[in-house]
Amino acid sequence: MEKLDVFYNPRSVAVIGASKNIDKAGHVIFKNFAENKRRGVFRGEIYPINPNEENILGFRCYPSITEVPGEIELLVIVVPARIVPEIMKEAVNKKVRAIVIISSGFGEVGNKELEDQVVRIARKGGIRVLGPNCLGVYYSKSGVDTLFLPETKILATGDEIIATPRPMLGEIAIVTQSGAFGVAALDYLTGRQIGISKFASFGNKCDVTEAEMLHYLSYDEETKVILLYVEDIKAGREFLRIAKKVSLKKPIVALKAGRSNAGARAAASHTGAIAGSDRIYDAAFEQAGVRRAKDMEDFFDSGKALAMQPPAVGNNIGVLTDAGGPGILAVDECELGGLTVKRFSQETIQEFQRLKSEGVLPKFASTTNPVDLTGSVTDEMFEIAAEIMFRDPEVHGIILLGLHHLPALREKYIDEVAKISGKYRKPIVACDIGETEMALYTRFRFDKLGIPSYSSPEDAARAMKSLVRYGAYLKKNKCFENYTEEFLKKKRKYP
Amino acid sequence: MEKLDVFYNPRSVAVIGASKNIDKAGHVIFKNFAENKRRGVFRGEIYPINPNEENILGFRCYPSITEVPGEIELLVIVVPARIVPEIMKEAVNKKVRAIVIISSGFGEVGNKELEDQVVRIARKGGIRVLGPNCLGVYYSKSGVDTLFLPETKILATGDEIIATPRPMLGEIAIVTQSGAFGVAALDYLTGRQIGISKFASFGNKCDVTEAEMLHYLSYDEETKVILLYVEDIKAGREFLRIAKKVSLKKPIVALKAGRSNAGARAAASHTGAIAGSDRIYDAAFEQAGVRRAKDMEDFFDSGKALAMQPPAVGNNIGVLTDAGGPGILAVDECELGGLTVKRFSQETIQEFQRLKSEGVLPKFASTTNPVDLTGSVTDEMFEIAAEIMFRDPEVHGIILLGLHHLPALREKYIDEVAKISGKYRKPIVACDIGETEMALYTRFRFDKLGIPSYSSPEDAARAMKSLVRYGAYLKKNKCFENYTEEFLKKKRKYP
Repeated sequence: MEKLDVFYNPRSVAVIGASKNIDKAGHVIFKNFAENKRRGVFRGEIYPINPNEENILGFRCYPSITEVPGEIELLVIVVPARIVPEIMKEAVNKKVRAIVIISSGFGEVGNKELEDQVVRIARKGGIRVLGPNCLGVYYSKSGVDTLFLPETKILATGDEIIATPRPMLGEIAIVTQSGAFGVAALDYLTGRQIGISKFASFGNKCDVTEAEMLHYLSYDEETKVILLYVEDIKAGREFLRIAKKVSLKKPIVALKAGRSNAGARAAASHTGAIAGSDRIYDAAFEQAGVRRAKDMEDFFDSGKALAMQPPAVGNNIGVLTDAGGPGILAVDECELGGLTVKRFSQETIQEFQRLKSEGVLPKFASTTNPVDLTGSVTDEMFEIAAEIMFRDPEVHGIILLGLHHLPALREKYIDEVAKISGKYRKPIVACDIGETEMALYTRFRFDKLGIPSYSSPEDAARAMKSLVRYGAYLKKNKCFENYTEEFLKKKRKYP
Repeated sequence: MEKLDVFYNPRSVAVIGASKNIDKAGHVIFKNFAENKRRGVFRGEIYPINPNEENILGFRCYPSITEVPGEIELLVIVVPARIVPEIMKEAVNKKVRAIVIISSGFGEVGNKELEDQVVRIARKGGIRVLGPNCLGVYYSKSGVDTLFLPETKILATGDEIIATPRPMLGEIAIVTQSGAFGVAALDYLTGRQIGISKFASFGNKCDVTEAEMLHYLSYDEETKVILLYVEDIKAGREFLRIAKKVSLKKPIVALKAGRSNAGARAAASHTGAIAGSDRIYDAAFEQAGVRRAKDMEDFFDSGKALAMQPPAVGNNIGVLTDAGGPGILAVDECELGGLTVKRFSQETIQEFQRLKSEGVLPKFASTTNPVDLTGSVTDEMFEIAAEIMFRDPEVHGIILLGLHHLPALREKYIDEVAKISGKYRKPIVACDIGETEMALYTRFRFDKLGIPSYSSPEDAARAMKSLVRYGAYLKKNKCFENYTEEFLKKKRKYP
């Protein structure tokens, strides 16, 4: 485990293939470290390695790592594949502890022998290798950033715009076999203001496996949820054994590409993955308590839910809405996904009846589950109804559909419902539909207060399903109480 | 048919229940007309009806419609349910042609007798009625806007923000049983810069049915695609008969809520809908050539694809990507959804081989379908590869995954691919993943040029599926050539 930590917290880094030319990957990567060092984020030593330069971005350049005066803990390799073994040997002599091989041209294009050679040298020298054919690692807190994709691009108009944003620190770890998928994930999460704890792109994963990374992350204080994108898993038994343990401590969500025959064929030529039968993966994930996402959106949505909310102790959901149609869509998705939306207990129904007869809730509101407060909804009505539902012991989780369009609804209820939810141990997820100002404000505010929000009723229902499924896995393994206790203790106190 | 046109193009409108009080629905609705008239968009006469006011927003107010000097073609009713029959009788005397009843308190809360009374009066007087318990109609071009949800809201901070935006003119019609779902749809589409042709919210649909509206829209020049949200369909046979005909002229996408038992129960108390067996709906939609969306997002995504692109003549798809992982996800979704992503013909593979050996495309690119141009992608490579795929007669549609993160890719290829696609009769859809500047720019530009773009590979694949399924329906009914010819002739010439 300590062996993997050096990837995220190295005291010294050298970049072989560092360059002054802005079009080179070696430029972007070295610049990431140089800028992070200048800002005081990266606190270790950094060395550009390039025999043809004296200095790069103000840092003294060395012709080889052998020439570097101090120690090198982490080495980033961005030179052609064929000279990598030679460099590996120098790295062994230099007592480098970990290497990220960005370079491609190994197993994925048939050069298996070259890759094996790299592995042999690394094993012999006790060096851990991430890659080759990968993007490496990103950790905002220590300033480690081996992504060769520049943060901005310049369009033909001369405008500079954000292209590959670097996310802020958060609670979701990303472990990905595909580099492009990885940066797309960073872009997606950053745009939704979701931070990440640690990022690792594997590529051909010649040495460090996803199972080891899961194990490492299970001890990582900052990581609450692990998102895992894979095209194949090579050491299946090891993965199963480790994932089983990890998922008792932290939820793992997996997106497995190559489900179809044509997809598997494509995966083979992408990372050399031998996808294997999709049913085997289904069974393995199920056994290991890993939530398998049905698609990319479900992958991110589930991760967000599991990072923000505690698991559900049962599968009966209360749906609270101000819009009948979207409420029904959420109910459908729950029930067809194996959750239930049962009629409330007599006590709860009577309490709602009383409030209706007193004029606190609209006379014509449906209140048997789903609760539809209708177009007459006010902020107070949402607050009162949510509290009743939280109190009902037979409701294990709440989906709140707060469509902002209705005339008397404002934004106050969002903060109030967040406060109420803080008194209970049940999960709640929210939805508002729309893409203009008030919808964006509503969803952003819910997220900010730790209630994951979604832009469609079905997305919200699927997110709730993740919380229910994970709760069931924890209960089966008698870890529910412990996990929930820990989760709520650590839950970020939102503003 | 002409009878329904009066809802969208009335020469005169009266609003009963018009008010000065900004919290009243009758205020918002009358103000919509008043403002649209002042701007020269609504060209007819408008009359506020309210016995307690002399003037509203500068327009002379009348105590009843009987007092109005000129004719009234369209009447909007926003007064309590119990006095609606009385008003209906006056409307018959006044020879009103169409009525939108916004008011609720009819069948949906058990007052079936009151609703029947309304219908009897309307039928006798030859008046068509939309509603009750609905939002009515919206048509940007004529300025008809009976939505009682104000365009903006004022937050506690004093900030005024957009809450229920009114979309610009476009090619998608929305026909919805749920009003709240309807405004959510307007908000969603407006935010994505997609215009709509005509909007109708049905509510209890006591008179005008969705089938009649489909029939009307099938003759509407501006409507290319019809999006239909329903919780039940009352006159099933009539719907089937009409939908069958309409869908040969224009694609219909349906979102049917109340699929599950609990969902059906909720629908019953929402619009009094008796949902019936979900399988029957499945079969009916299938028979009528109506594409049934699997969820809200699929509903909008399909509508966008069918409005922008011609149908596919077959089900074999070419996938073009610069990112291996997302490419595989798209392939998986295609194949699992009944499409194929077959290896290209020998000719096409050879052409790609030649370009690789000439160094025009990257040596290590996969080019058997999917085509993965890898991280070395440039704008030119996308253009060249797209043209080859468009030319291959065995490729019936193209999914282009242009992840903008890769270093040498800029924005030029977007316009170039749009130009190339204009030479062929095949559909193309695009995807870029991410939520920050360059991703938003990329998707926006594709949309602008008539290539529907999506934020996940699976969404793009599902959109393509809609184009394939609709193509198959047209072919089965020997309408493919005609439809495609017409579609391409009318296709908006994008900048």
